[in-house]
Amino acid sequence: MGFRLTPQENSFYDLFATSASHLVEGSRELTKMLGADIGERDSIAARMREIEHDADESTHEIIRKVNSSFITPFDREDIHGLASALDDCMDMMDAAVDLIVLYRVGDLPAGVADQVEVLSRMSELTAEAMPRLRSMKDLSEYWIEINRLENQADQTYRRLLAGLFNGDFGSDAITIMKLKEVVEELEAAADAFEKVAHKVESIAVKES
Amino acid sequence: MGFRLTPQENSFYDLFATSASHLVEGSRELTKMLGADIGERDSIAARMREIEHDADESTHEIIRKVNSSFITPFDREDIHGLASALDDCMDMMDAAVDLIVLYRVGDLPAGVADQVEVLSRMSELTAEAMPRLRSMKDLSEYWIEINRLENQADQTYRRLLAGLFNGDFGSDAITIMKLKEVVEELEAAADAFEKVAHKVESIAVKES
Amino acid sequence: MGFRLTPQENSFYDLFATSASHLVEGSRELTKMLGADIGERDSIAARMREIEHDADESTHEIIRKVNSSFITPFDREDIHGLASALDDCMDMMDAAVDLIVLYRVGDLPAGVADQVEVLSRMSELTAEAMPRLRSMKDLSEYWIEINRLENQADQTYRRLLAGLFNGDFGSDAITIMKLKEVVEELEAAADAFEKVAHKVESIAVKES
Repeated sequence: MGFRLTPQENSFYDLFATSASHLVEGSRELTKMLGADIGERDSIAARMREIEHDADESTHEIIRKVNSSFITPFDREDIHGLASALDDCMDMMDAAVDLIVLYRVGDLPAGVADQVEVLSRMSELTAEAMPRLRSMKDLSEYWIEINRLENQADQTYRRLLAGLFNGDFGSDAITIMKLKEVVEELEAAADAFEKVAHKVESIAVKES
Repeated sequence: MGFRLTPQENSFYDLFATSASHLVEGSRELTKMLGADIGERDSIAARMREIEHDADESTHEIIRKVNSSFITPFDREDIHGLASALDDCMDMMDAAVDLIVLYRVGDLPAGVADQVEVLSRMSELTAEAMPRLRSMKDLSEYWIEINRLENQADQTYRRLLAGLFNGDFGSDAITIMKLKEVVEELEAAADAFEKVAHKVESIAVKES
Repeated sequence: MGFRLTPQENSFYDLFATSASHLVEGSRELTKMLGADIGERDSIAARMREIEHDADESTHEIIRKVNSSFITPFDREDIHGLASALDDCMDMMDAAVDLIVLYRVGDLPAGVADQVEVLSRMSELTAEAMPRLRSMKDLSEYWIEINRLENQADQTYRRLLAGLFNGDFGSDAITIMKLKEVVEELEAAADAFEKVAHKVESIAVKES
């Protein structure tokens, strides 16, 4: 193994950018799911699964690269941690899509569209931030905005559950349970994006 | 930036003490919530929100200080981690208060008072432990007691859920779901206090 | 304290092996629970509690040893982290057993046996992997297999919940809620085993 430092480093940043780009793709399928007829849901879920596999591939490529690189742009553990935090975002968006199909959920509450819009914005911000890991500059705007969005997601989530429990979607307990699961998985995805931002913040703090 | 090491360090400890003191205040509002009439709940929740904002301010002040300090009393990442673990305790107690209002929960099961009592005790112990970070002495009693309390909270929590499921609060599934959410949030708060104790323990192990 | 490096190190590996062996024992009680009559459940839960106490003892022994050792085979924090990750697996299997008794759950869905089988396999793989920490060799097979099993557990879990929600176990919301709690605790146990594997992986990456 040689000492071609710059290309080595570059490719880590490229891999993180690729990994985050899958999140943007995933959030698009999630958005499609909202407006889809019941009959279209299976094909959207199948497309989501492909994106999730691609994302898995990106994660494994980062891990393999860490394990085989002599020099890494920042701590091995942090590269590891960031790769796996990005992967969690994908897993949770994929799980939400999967649950909608599996639980044969009927109509989705209007607030779910707000949750998904936040996830789309978080995906874009995350994808835009990854290339800035190279200079470690202008990252604070990213994590501040993600934190703000997560707080907003939290509010939406609590109000959604309150609506479900207080009869906005009827009084069938099992219907409410199913919707609750979907809404919770989307909230978990927003939390996962916040964890990515925390990871980036802690890397930036360490390297600065 | 100068090298006034001691004042610099002192103020980190002071900030952690302030951060933990908000937890004591928060746990007091939570306790008030238990005995409150439905009509008083909104004003308690409003007061809780203010405390939560103050706690957020403390967290941000710690983060800003880490980022601008040349010398820190222990690892930057650990200061970060501890500040955010303290913040999680506040968020979860605040969430519990918020859910009681949002879900228009009626009477609370008696076991909830036991959960809240444990959280009050955990808040006090945490606030008392923060100044001891300076000497890193006499901290083991703190984390051992927090672990013990968390085990106790865990028992209370499981028995509470068992009671809910086995009809102690009637058989209305939606009422049970609402109470379950509140009870789970309080349990998550107890877990968050344990994470603070684990963080303190791992800092002490590292620095010793 | 002397410098008897090798025995010192050995005993850390032995302690991790002992800790993981409790998981194998625990998973056996969990398996017994599935086939047990309602009347036998209490004694299985009592036996599980003893195993959980033994596991707690092992964890504390590791922590004490870390705190009193001059030389440790790998980072103190990582020893700490791994010990507590192993402990979490035990806690969650114990919780699942406890919930079955506490909630007075009736028959368990067939899919629960698949969940428990995965946990048994994970316990064995984890126990087999611990002695390999000494050489840090041949560990990748272990964590790859754990990841594969966790993905499988995830699929089982989602399908189980879908079955519950879609009427496989009748339409009584409270029965469904009870079973959901048990199924979720078992899924959390599988996640906990994956966290152990992640911890081992990150230690191996660091030490390599």
